Amino acid sequence: MTLKLGVIGTGAIGQEHIRRCSKVLQGATVVAVSDINVDGARETLRRLDLQAEVYADGFEVINSPDVDAVLVTSWDPTHEAFTLAAVAAGKPVFCEKPLALSAEGCRRIVDAEIEHGKRLVQVGFMRPYDAGYRALKKVIVDGEIGEPLMLHCAHRNPTVPESYTTDMAITSTLIHELDVLRWLTDDDFKSVQVVYPRVTSKTHARLKDPQIVLFETQKGVRIDVEVFVNCAYGYDIQCEVVGENGIARLPEPSSVQLRKDARLSTSILTDWKDRFIDAYDVELQAFINDVHAGQLTGPSAWDGFAASVAADACLKAQNSGIIETVEMPPRPEFYNR
Amino acid sequence: MTLKLGVIGTGAIGQEHIRRCSKVLQGATVVAVSDINVDGARETLRRLDLQAEVYADGFEVINSPDVDAVLVTSWDPTHEAFTLAAVAAGKPVFCEKPLALSAEGCRRIVDAEIEHGKRLVQVGFMRPYDAGYRALKKVIVDGEIGEPLMLHCAHRNPTVPESYTTDMAITSTLIHELDVLRWLTDDDFKSVQVVYPRVTSKTHARLKDPQIVLFETQKGVRIDVEVFVNCAYGYDIQCEVVGENGIARLPEPSSVQLRKDARLSTSILTDWKDRFIDAYDVELQAFINDVHAGQLTGPSAWDGFAASVAADACLKAQNSGIIETVEMPPRPEFYNR
Amino acid sequence: MTLKLGVIGTGAIGQEHIRRCSKVLQGATVVAVSDINVDGARETLRRLDLQAEVYADGFEVINSPDVDAVLVTSWDPTHEAFTLAAVAAGKPVFCEKPLALSAEGCRRIVDAEIEHGKRLVQVGFMRPYDAGYRALKKVIVDGEIGEPLMLHCAHRNPTVPESYTTDMAITSTLIHELDVLRWLTDDDFKSVQVVYPRVTSKTHARLKDPQIVLFETQKGVRIDVEVFVNCAYGYDIQCEVVGENGIARLPEPSSVQLRKDARLSTSILTDWKDRFIDAYDVELQAFINDVHAGQLTGPSAWDGFAASVAADACLKAQNSGIIETVEMPPRPEFYNR
Amino acid sequence: MTLKLGVIGTGAIGQEHIRRCSKVLQGATVVAVSDINVDGARETLRRLDLQAEVYADGFEVINSPDVDAVLVTSWDPTHEAFTLAAVAAGKPVFCEKPLALSAEGCRRIVDAEIEHGKRLVQVGFMRPYDAGYRALKKVIVDGEIGEPLMLHCAHRNPTVPESYTTDMAITSTLIHELDVLRWLTDDDFKSVQVVYPRVTSKTHARLKDPQIVLFETQKGVRIDVEVFVNCAYGYDIQCEVVGENGIARLPEPSSVQLRKDARLSTSILTDWKDRFIDAYDVELQAFINDVHAGQLTGPSAWDGFAASVAADACLKAQNSGIIETVEMPPRPEFYNR
Repeated sequence: MTLKLGVIGTGAIGQEHIRRCSKVLQGATVVAVSDINVDGARETLRRLDLQAEVYADGFEVINSPDVDAVLVTSWDPTHEAFTLAAVAAGKPVFCEKPLALSAEGCRRIVDAEIEHGKRLVQVGFMRPYDAGYRALKKVIVDGEIGEPLMLHCAHRNPTVPESYTTDMAITSTLIHELDVLRWLTDDDFKSVQVVYPRVTSKTHARLKDPQIVLFETQKGVRIDVEVFVNCAYGYDIQCEVVGENGIARLPEPSSVQLRKDARLSTSILTDWKDRFIDAYDVELQAFINDVHAGQLTGPSAWDGFAASVAADACLKAQNSGIIETVEMPPRPEFYNR
Repeated sequence: MTLKLGVIGTGAIGQEHIRRCSKVLQGATVVAVSDINVDGARETLRRLDLQAEVYADGFEVINSPDVDAVLVTSWDPTHEAFTLAAVAAGKPVFCEKPLALSAEGCRRIVDAEIEHGKRLVQVGFMRPYDAGYRALKKVIVDGEIGEPLMLHCAHRNPTVPESYTTDMAITSTLIHELDVLRWLTDDDFKSVQVVYPRVTSKTHARLKDPQIVLFETQKGVRIDVEVFVNCAYGYDIQCEVVGENGIARLPEPSSVQLRKDARLSTSILTDWKDRFIDAYDVELQAFINDVHAGQLTGPSAWDGFAASVAADACLKAQNSGIIETVEMPPRPEFYNR
Repeated sequence: MTLKLGVIGTGAIGQEHIRRCSKVLQGATVVAVSDINVDGARETLRRLDLQAEVYADGFEVINSPDVDAVLVTSWDPTHEAFTLAAVAAGKPVFCEKPLALSAEGCRRIVDAEIEHGKRLVQVGFMRPYDAGYRALKKVIVDGEIGEPLMLHCAHRNPTVPESYTTDMAITSTLIHELDVLRWLTDDDFKSVQVVYPRVTSKTHARLKDPQIVLFETQKGVRIDVEVFVNCAYGYDIQCEVVGENGIARLPEPSSVQLRKDARLSTSILTDWKDRFIDAYDVELQAFINDVHAGQLTGPSAWDGFAASVAADACLKAQNSGIIETVEMPPRPEFYNR
Repeated sequence: MTLKLGVIGTGAIGQEHIRRCSKVLQGATVVAVSDINVDGARETLRRLDLQAEVYADGFEVINSPDVDAVLVTSWDPTHEAFTLAAVAAGKPVFCEKPLALSAEGCRRIVDAEIEHGKRLVQVGFMRPYDAGYRALKKVIVDGEIGEPLMLHCAHRNPTVPESYTTDMAITSTLIHELDVLRWLTDDDFKSVQVVYPRVTSKTHARLKDPQIVLFETQKGVRIDVEVFVNCAYGYDIQCEVVGENGIARLPEPSSVQLRKDARLSTSILTDWKDRFIDAYDVELQAFINDVHAGQLTGPSAWDGFAASVAADACLKAQNSGIIETVEMPPRPEFYNR
């Protein structure tokens, strides 16, 4: 039985997901799409040689009797309303990050989902589906390094556009660590502090770059994340977990080893799209499979809420310069893993 | 439009390919299967929850009007006949290695295919579909290391069963290098020599282990392949290409880096099935896509023939101890890439 | 012309330096030694088969007309007085760390040396003489990574004795980073903060382990140093310098690469004495050569003072939990490099 | 007590050894030198600010009553005569490679030494004193990889002068492997074969480059050595020992790890002088210490002879293209280690 998907928003990521669900993954088909630019939506279908109903309005997609489940890949400010509508319709919904523009918005989705009585929402955090992170988590869970005590992380981009500002280091970049680190350590953030190193000459006035974000978790683990979005040399995601008995480090992406020009080297990626490309496939296949199986297991509305709460505390810490508490309410029984 | 596949042989690899085509890949469905053990074939379908016609005879699969293309995953001695029948029926056929039991058998398939006038046969050599080998080939083709002059390779298994004998180092193990090295270097073997190092204490009387196989290619490239099937430490495939300007080495499989017990380490695989698991998916998806596109591009009957001719020369060299010529006829225009 | 050395203190490090200067290095000879345990001093000479005058009192060593230069390797509380006496005698003096028990004590030596009018004091910080740190500094100075913005460091010991307490993470362990990081970056500490991760189960009540020490330098560089003295897995010194154009990392000690037991690994040292063994030779040879050349260039009394000031701020930060200023007066012209 | 050295030949390597013995090492002093260019010898002493007797004739150096031991660093054709003279004079002699121009010449030295009744000769093979090779040997001797079965080696230079010809790949380059591999494996060569890969475009008519030299040892170990003296990318010495239980690889020279320009890299040396610079110091210090101790332990006249016999077989194999026997007589009891 094929899962009939409706996709709301046919921008870049929407197009990618439509292609993925139609041409790569198993068990689903795209039967309806919408976009505020209806011609763009049609063009996407035409280019991919797909048959699907085109709607001008996302809510029509959600409510179409043909649609079993919904992908929300629209403009960020619309995520909350579409996700809430899908929950109201009792349809599984995969919503790209951010789940909502505010923690309060995320909380409304959490509340609606709990009221519905069953998980319907998966947030588009793909790193837990990355083979490297999964291998790293396995090492931790298998007890190979003992209890984690510290994590040293880095999120580096070669460059960012002029429109990228200091706060986006949190909301656009660190947001991935805010989710994956909770998943990796099975822990929650307790407090956060942001410090600003000497700025690189490659940035501009509205972007302090790099930044270092320092967390303490509920279990007392200390996490430092270097966010450096004009690092020049590549797109490089680092994560090192220091445990009681040893240290485990996220795998480097596989690369041919070269001996050339007096250097022994492997390549570093430069485009973020290459780094987690496989993880997107795995993530959506998992969503499709989980819907078929009747039980979502991926990043939940609660995870989206938690990332949002943490991001708010980070933004506060960016401005205050002091240690800010991450005001995270206790996890509802509903979301216990 | 979905490609309707008939699968001949539902042993281990047959089951894997049925699962793959039905549950993982896009664009195909298994509509017919056969096995000398008809109950086994039925059980496979049941276990995978698939609907397909079950035949006692592979030729019925080939000739079923429902079947668009054929996968031959039966007992090795039957490969040639089934592949020839598929060609006679004008149906694309993916045949697991070996294409035939002898070079002459492979040649008969080549001749039949040429007579048919269009490529119909793909041989199940999966390494050209491995991401690592593809990256290595790209480095060569891009000219990053200049013209290749030498290749240093190794094929190591942790252990083999008692039934594995000296000749199987060629026919079961080296056979993969015999294909992938031709593909990697776009070259053909000219001569071969086999030397026997001191044997490991972990082998038995009928297996000389390790062996070193030394090739010269038509272009004069020298290739040494260490075949060591009781190497104890892991399943390890190495390939280093020494070019005029530098050296490129096959990527190591990705792994968490550990600092533990006074060692800084990454893991080495121990099961061959893990090493090329992704390549099998890519290989069969490529076959499906190529059939849809009307033009096969993967390992051809000619490649199967070439591997067989090279293997024969290796076997001769194993016994003679001298340099043996690889008697390879010129490539027919039909197979020019 | 051979430099005649007097060595005050024939404990472990004193014996090592006597052996080094007598049996390994060029251009010096040990002509006088002292120790509060005179018999121990005699035994050391006997064991090394050396002729030298033995004194009960270090000041006699300093004032012996036979002695050209002095090594102070005595009990820490005596360092200041002996070093001051050597300066008063106008004799070059190599004093093991700490230069004095307090920043004030170091400052008295600085003042005495300035008053003397010429550098006479070298402090026994050996890391600037380590080939790895020198290679790292060269990369920075050559501009290969652009301006340094952040340093991520770690100082890990496999285990420490029961007598090791929280403050010793600064005074016995971090003290090496306090010197070498100033040298490496040609910069001074401005502020420091200490955070305590979840403690390892391998520590005891009087030792919080691990600790993370966070610095800001005068130039705005951010430095984090993980100090983890029960890390279990090895003695491991890490230093990564993040610059505007790239990242440079301290070389790992050279090691045979092993493929064994399904791991690809190199060894990690477990004994700190092995890590910087060569640096001790280079350090003392440099002192001898510099005395011959009439101009000391190694770690100065000012460097000893700076490390002491920084250590005091770290100790304060350990207790306060807040960001503490490193109250470093401007560098006197006398010490400009 | 200082060893009084006479040095015959003050060319490049002679000057280096004079400097080394005078300025770096312990326990020796250069008291006499000779060179056919007497002015050059004087200039060397002047430049190094040394006092020593200058002779026009090397035999005068050997026979000077002031001289305890001799270093032969003269023109290759004179090595044999000077070494024989030193043996005749009963003086320890360190002779740079080659010990003699022919195996017969080496054998004459062996015979003279045996007749003298005690080892007096050390040949200047420095690789057994390299820390990396020593670590590799330790791994083997400690049984970490089980019995060695195969060695894969490479000797690569970035480039060579026009005067370098095919035979010099053996006599100037491989000669180091001919010694160190015997030492590493505690084994002797039994046969050798040379194969010529496609030549690099960077060579000239009188130099076939690269070459691969294939050995079988007395114990049945197979060794392949790639000799590639115009490899362009660096000076790179590789040695991988495949044992029954695992594989050990010669350490790469220590290097800062860089992340820059989309590459993660370490440096490869380009000048051979940098690669074994420390080994020269260790080698000569060992000679000095061994003379003091009354027992030479370094590469012996027998080792020089063995390397010469092996080189002759390699040269024969270069020309014949077939497998040539290494005609090595049994090791005299005198040289048993």
